[in-house]
Amino acid sequence: MRGRKYVHGYSEREKVRLRDQADTLAELLHGDTVYPPGSLVLEAGCGVGAQTVILAQNSAETHFLSIDISDESLRKAKETTERAGIVNVQFQKGDIYDLPFEDERFDHVFVCFVLEHLLRPLDALQNLKRVLKKNGSITVIEGDHGSAYFHPDSPEARKAIQCLVDIQAKMGGDSLIGRRIYPLLKASGFNNVRVSPRMVYVDSSRPHLVEGFTKNTFTAMVEGVREQALALGMMDEKTWDKGIRDLYRTAETDGTFCYTFFKGTASR
Amino acid sequence: MRGRKYVHGYSEREKVRLRDQADTLAELLHGDTVYPPGSLVLEAGCGVGAQTVILAQNSAETHFLSIDISDESLRKAKETTERAGIVNVQFQKGDIYDLPFEDERFDHVFVCFVLEHLLRPLDALQNLKRVLKKNGSITVIEGDHGSAYFHPDSPEARKAIQCLVDIQAKMGGDSLIGRRIYPLLKASGFNNVRVSPRMVYVDSSRPHLVEGFTKNTFTAMVEGVREQALALGMMDEKTWDKGIRDLYRTAETDGTFCYTFFKGTASR
Repeated sequence: MRGRKYVHGYSEREKVRLRDQADTLAELLHGDTVYPPGSLVLEAGCGVGAQTVILAQNSAETHFLSIDISDESLRKAKETTERAGIVNVQFQKGDIYDLPFEDERFDHVFVCFVLEHLLRPLDALQNLKRVLKKNGSITVIEGDHGSAYFHPDSPEARKAIQCLVDIQAKMGGDSLIGRRIYPLLKASGFNNVRVSPRMVYVDSSRPHLVEGFTKNTFTAMVEGVREQALALGMMDEKTWDKGIRDLYRTAETDGTFCYTFFKGTASR
Repeated sequence: MRGRKYVHGYSEREKVRLRDQADTLAELLHGDTVYPPGSLVLEAGCGVGAQTVILAQNSAETHFLSIDISDESLRKAKETTERAGIVNVQFQKGDIYDLPFEDERFDHVFVCFVLEHLLRPLDALQNLKRVLKKNGSITVIEGDHGSAYFHPDSPEARKAIQCLVDIQAKMGGDSLIGRRIYPLLKASGFNNVRVSPRMVYVDSSRPHLVEGFTKNTFTAMVEGVREQALALGMMDEKTWDKGIRDLYRTAETDGTFCYTFFKGTASR
């Protein structure tokens, strides 16, 4: 769900969305990721730093090296971490397919909302394995847009979500990758692979998630591909608009919304 | 997922399936349901007693009154509990729409895999509320077949699952009811409604679930509607068989399978 220009866009609204998402989900996704003091952790594909801030705060005495392929993202990530008073992160430009590091450089590796955007996630994982120390851990977190369902159900809403999935697939990504983390980590040769789902269940007894997840994270993300979906003729405008209205409808008092992230850990 | 003759059938295989399901899921679904010693609990719609055994064993000093509309199911449930040496359950024939009990008779009410089969789940809940004491609790557990997704994904497998959903809908049921437990309990006038999802995530590091859930519970259940689905022309035989093969395919070493049950609790 992390922004890539071509899929999600970097508008002001997008920044708000990424911040809301990070706040709401921080504990669910990252609460159990705490690294030993003094260890060196590679965050591969830090984007604008939405997860970096949480990671670095949860392990304040760990050194993070956060890389991204985009200068613009790195600049924003630096700003974000500086604003948060974080001092244990360094940033460096780097390509996940061609990591500028010697073998076994890092104690641990962390990848969040990155593999979904990659044409060759298996190659990426094998590259990350190279720079990871023996017995070091890798943590992978990804969403899975096929895990979204809701009440009231709506064919138009499901179709709008499918547009997001199809657009990401056209860019070479896979937004259904969450369910594939286990086989991907196994196929990359990691040991002790363990995957745990992190399900976000939203009903009106959880107003923070209604706002922070159903509306400002998930539905906003689907809305973000409106123009592409219409331009590509994937849906007509009327059906699209009904789909989005129906997604917002699930945020009313009698609505419910479900989405699942997957978190995998393994060791080299 | 509890058997009703018209949907799941009561073959020997079905009995094995129900037993496997109960073993595998007992802790996930029922582990946190323990009633005070001496209290009286109504289990509404006990079926063949698959859940009754677990309930009664988890609260050995609680008195259970388990009802079902089917004499045949009650007979089997009695056999099952007797065989398990259970002495704290009484059985009685009863209709959930016309409960043979005075108001506020029970300290607590328990309903599992029942509402999915009912044409009027809201009426059923309101009837159950009538016989529940003030401040007594109700516990509702249901599956949601729309929560199933898997790797490798397969349109034919999804279509076969949709047949099960459609057949259950034709019978007046709703196999997507899990996501509706929150609004149903609220609309029935219960207080302190709280719903928690219970997700079953299966990969090959969890061989007991691969066998006990993916194959022997879920896929076996879908297979159970083969003849109805073909007779109704919902799918042709070749596509159906591919769908079933693809569901078994998700049980191989690089496959994954996800399904979510929903557990709601509330008080009167």
